[in-house]
Amino acid sequence: MHIDIISVVPGLLEGPFSHSILKRAEEKGIATVRVHNLRDYATGKQKQVDDYAFGGGAGMVLMAAPIAACIEALKQERDYDEILYMTPDGAPFSQPMANALSLKKNIMILCGHYKGVDERIRTQYITREISIGDYVLSGGELAAAVVADALIRLLPGVLNDETSALTDSFQDGLLAPPVYTRPAVWNGEAVPEVLLSGHTEHIANWRFEASVRRTQERRPDLYRKFEEGDENSTR
Amino acid sequence: MHIDIISVVPGLLEGPFSHSILKRAEEKGIATVRVHNLRDYATGKQKQVDDYAFGGGAGMVLMAAPIAACIEALKQERDYDEILYMTPDGAPFSQPMANALSLKKNIMILCGHYKGVDERIRTQYITREISIGDYVLSGGELAAAVVADALIRLLPGVLNDETSALTDSFQDGLLAPPVYTRPAVWNGEAVPEVLLSGHTEHIANWRFEASVRRTQERRPDLYRKFEEGDENSTR
Repeated sequence: MHIDIISVVPGLLEGPFSHSILKRAEEKGIATVRVHNLRDYATGKQKQVDDYAFGGGAGMVLMAAPIAACIEALKQERDYDEILYMTPDGAPFSQPMANALSLKKNIMILCGHYKGVDERIRTQYITREISIGDYVLSGGELAAAVVADALIRLLPGVLNDETSALTDSFQDGLLAPPVYTRPAVWNGEAVPEVLLSGHTEHIANWRFEASVRRTQERRPDLYRKFEEGDENSTR
Repeated sequence: MHIDIISVVPGLLEGPFSHSILKRAEEKGIATVRVHNLRDYATGKQKQVDDYAFGGGAGMVLMAAPIAACIEALKQERDYDEILYMTPDGAPFSQPMANALSLKKNIMILCGHYKGVDERIRTQYITREISIGDYVLSGGELAAAVVADALIRLLPGVLNDETSALTDSFQDGLLAPPVYTRPAVWNGEAVPEVLLSGHTEHIANWRFEASVRRTQERRPDLYRKFEEGDENSTR
């Protein structure tokens, strides 16, 4: 998988891709991420990339021309399956969406900044608009990093143990159960006995029940979907 | 506002806080963010911070003792309003939650990694568990950066124009309207005429209607809440 990220603050993305699993994915040749500075595609002496919004009001808008120039330049190098735009009014990012996008080969991600990008870029170039949640950030950079991380960790060979991602929250429609590690008693609190029993089936049952209980308590909305899905698959 | 972030991969957070608005907030003395390496609080020769999960299964679990040692050390220096844990099974992060948390003075954020942290840390130390969305990341670091960014940009004096954050998506319960900047015609597509009219009231009406339409089309769930809130406030 190859991901190109277009940003007006590329330095913001220095850390996330040079550590931990994203670094490992790059070293193993499984995924590459490149961050492109939008300012490199600005024309004119000032290297201007933003301007005031038509109609007035606070906040600057990223201009269409430099973004189009950057997208066109990248398109010369490869064909893209998706050109994503990170924006609070996009489709909510979810684990099923991450699973589907992780099967793509080349993805471009445009980060907004300030008030966002000129709408005409969205209508003319963007294939999919994504929001990582119902809150506003100072730019799309962290959102792009979140999407890249969620996708890349799913690629075979990235996590040390490939079964690890399958036991995550959301992969079965439920929240993950509590986890514990040594010591068995810590600060006066003991690990649930069943987890020390070595009885595989009991442990699996306990985990499933803990997942169900946690989902019911914390996310009744998810639990309703889980029940509906369950009914559909057994009919 | 002061934010302490506890992480086992602190390098991942190098970029986000040394650029753009977060850097500006620090320079202006409005907000400080410090990232602490969990490994510095590990004991023993190996500086071990994770171990296998009781009950078996893939993925490592962050041990309770180093986390507790780090939290206790930080608590010596200041009183915390909240000790947050970033986890997919936490309460969904939202703009109202960001608004409320932005009023706090000292916040600690614990980042999970691998399969998460020993449950006993959650029951004994954490005041609030937060999820930035229904997807799984390789760790809580990007999630912590997202929360820090969402909070800090709301602090007075951080954005260049203080009215800017109030016209964001979600602040009025609606998605933001499209934005345009120069040129008025670009790549064959013209800016909506009303935005060039200079007529403040018409522009405000157009923006409100565009917000409503976009929210209805893209996020009927949000629109229902908006209508309910509207009914409540006018009765």
